[in-house]
Amino acid sequence: MTGARTLPDVHPLTGVPAGTPADVPGLPPEVTICEVGPRDGLQNEAGHVPAAVKVELVHRLEASGLTRVEVTSLVRPDRIPQLADAEEVLTALGPPPPGRRRPVLVPNAHGLRRALELGVRDVAVFASATDTFARRNLGRGLAESLAAYGPVVAQARQAGLHVRGYLSMCFGDPWEGRVPLAQVVDAARQLVAAGCQELSLGDTIGVATPGHVRALLAALADAGTDASHLAVHFHDTYGQALANTLTALECGVTVVDASAGGLGGCPYAHSATGNLATEDLVWMLDGLGVRTGVDLDALVATSTWLAGRLGRPSPSRVVRALGGGRP
Amino acid sequence: MTGARTLPDVHPLTGVPAGTPADVPGLPPEVTICEVGPRDGLQNEAGHVPAAVKVELVHRLEASGLTRVEVTSLVRPDRIPQLADAEEVLTALGPPPPGRRRPVLVPNAHGLRRALELGVRDVAVFASATDTFARRNLGRGLAESLAAYGPVVAQARQAGLHVRGYLSMCFGDPWEGRVPLAQVVDAARQLVAAGCQELSLGDTIGVATPGHVRALLAALADAGTDASHLAVHFHDTYGQALANTLTALECGVTVVDASAGGLGGCPYAHSATGNLATEDLVWMLDGLGVRTGVDLDALVATSTWLAGRLGRPSPSRVVRALGGGRP
Repeated sequence: MTGARTLPDVHPLTGVPAGTPADVPGLPPEVTICEVGPRDGLQNEAGHVPAAVKVELVHRLEASGLTRVEVTSLVRPDRIPQLADAEEVLTALGPPPPGRRRPVLVPNAHGLRRALELGVRDVAVFASATDTFARRNLGRGLAESLAAYGPVVAQARQAGLHVRGYLSMCFGDPWEGRVPLAQVVDAARQLVAAGCQELSLGDTIGVATPGHVRALLAALADAGTDASHLAVHFHDTYGQALANTLTALECGVTVVDASAGGLGGCPYAHSATGNLATEDLVWMLDGLGVRTGVDLDALVATSTWLAGRLGRPSPSRVVRALGGGRP
Repeated sequence: MTGARTLPDVHPLTGVPAGTPADVPGLPPEVTICEVGPRDGLQNEAGHVPAAVKVELVHRLEASGLTRVEVTSLVRPDRIPQLADAEEVLTALGPPPPGRRRPVLVPNAHGLRRALELGVRDVAVFASATDTFARRNLGRGLAESLAAYGPVVAQARQAGLHVRGYLSMCFGDPWEGRVPLAQVVDAARQLVAAGCQELSLGDTIGVATPGHVRALLAALADAGTDASHLAVHFHDTYGQALANTLTALECGVTVVDASAGGLGGCPYAHSATGNLATEDLVWMLDGLGVRTGVDLDALVATSTWLAGRLGRPSPSRVVRALGGGRP
C-alpha cells in the first residue's frame, strides 16, 4: 500500500458515473429544484447576514441554473428578525428575469398585501399537519389555522399569483409522534380546496423513512392529490433526506425543495437541523441522468463563498468534498 | 410563532414512523449489518487509539446487537500503524460468543498464517476493481493481484474459514474515472472462482449513485453472481451512501457494511471520507420495519462514548441528533 496522498480531485463530470436513469423505475427525466436556502436556510442563522449578501446569494444561485429560488418571508420582523430585511432584499432584487421564479413566504393577509405592493408574483403559505405545531408555530389550532388561509390564498389567486402551500410535520411531530396519514391527507385536501396550486410536504424534524414516504404519497393519490401537484421538503436531521427524495421521485414527484450547502432548519422545532443540501441532490440527479439545469461547480462555489460569509463550514457532503466548504 | 425551544427529544421508537415495509418493493425482511468501524474506521485515525479501547468498542458494538464486527487487519505494522496492535486486540477478545462473527482482514498468506494461529474463523481479502488502485494500494496490477489471492483464499477455505472478498473502486476511481461494469464483473468472477463466499462491493471514493448501483447489480446477476453472495460498502463522501444502500436492498442485497458513528475512510484515497454510519442505516431500517437486531440507543451511546475517546464529534447525523456525538 503506497502512500498516494496527492490524488487528483474527483470531478463530478468525470469521476461520477453518468446517467443510467433507465435502471431506476419511475424516475422522471427532469426535476425542478425549489431552492429554499435564502429563506429556510438563512432564517435559522444566529448571526446577522447583510441584505447585500442575500441579494448576491440569490443572483449567484440563479446564475448556477436554479430557476426557483425562495428569496424571503414577509413575516413580522419581531418574530423572525433574520428576515426583517425582506422588503429591502425584494426591492434590491427587482422583478425576476424571464423564466425565473422567486417565491416569497406570506404568513397572512397583511404579508400578502406587502407582497403585492412589492410586485411579487409567487407566494407560499405555511401550514401544519399537526395541531400542536399549528398552535405553537402559527398561534392557533389545526382546523382554525387551515381555515384562515382560505381568504389569503383566494386573494392571491385573484391577483394572478402562483400559490404554494407548505404542509409541515407531515411525518413525525416532536409532541405528537407519528402523524396519521389521514390527518395529512385531510390537511392537504383543505389547502388544495383553498386554491393552493402546489403542496410542499415537509418532514420538518427529519424523521421520515422511505416506506412512510411511499405510504403518504399513495394515500394522497388515493384521495385525489397526485404527485403532479406535490413537492417534497426533507430535512437531514437523521441522514434520511436523500433516500426519501429518491423514493418520492420514484413515486412521480418532480419538484424537490433543497437548500444550497444544506443550510437551514426551523428555529422553533428542536432537532430540525439542516435541509437536504442542494449539492447532494444535484450529485445524485446528475449521476442518474435526471436533468436539473444546475451547474454543480457553480453551486459548490456559491456555497463555499456563503460558508465564508457565515463563518462556518457547509454541512453539505458534496460542498465539503469538492469545495472544502470551510471559510 | 411562539418560541418553543425546550421540546422533548424525538425518540426513535416513538417519533420515527414504524415499519411500512410492504410499501417498498423488493425489500428484505431482515438485513445483516457488517460493522466495519473497528477496522475500516480506526485504521484512518490520526491519533493513537489504545488496544483496550478497541476491545471495549467491539464488546459494546456486540452488546448493541451487531452480530458481525470486523475487528482488525493483520497487515504489516509499518503500512498501517493504527492496526499494529491487531494481535493484542485479537488475543484480548478471545473467541467470539456463539452466533457472533468477528472477521479479520488478511492481506496475504503471511497474514492468513497469523490469523490461523490466533484462532480467527472469518477472514477477508482486499482486492481492487481497477488497475491503478491495485498498483498503488496492493503493489501489483489488477490481474496479478487478483491471481495472488487464489492460494490465500484456497488455504483459508481448506482450514474451514469463511472468506469474504472486498472489491474496492467498483464505481469510480480517482485516477481512472468511471469503472466499466464489465471490469467489475470480471474481477468479481475471479474472486468467487478463487473461493470467496461473499463479495463486498466497495464505492471507495463515494461517487456512486442509485442508477449505477442497479446497473452493477444487474450486470453481476446476469453473469451468475446474484445478490445472495453480495454485500455493499458505501462511503458517504458525496452524501449518497444511504440512497445507494436503499437501492441495493431493493435489488436483493441483504448484507450491508457500515461503520458506527460514520467513522472511516481509506487513508490512501483522497476524498474517501466516512463510511455509511451504522446509526443512519439502522434509523432507516427501523423505519422500514426491516429487522437488524440492533438497539439504536445502545449503538448511539457507543458512538458518543467513542467520539469522546477520539476527541472529535461523530459525523453520523443520528448520533449528532440523538446523542450529541460531541466529546
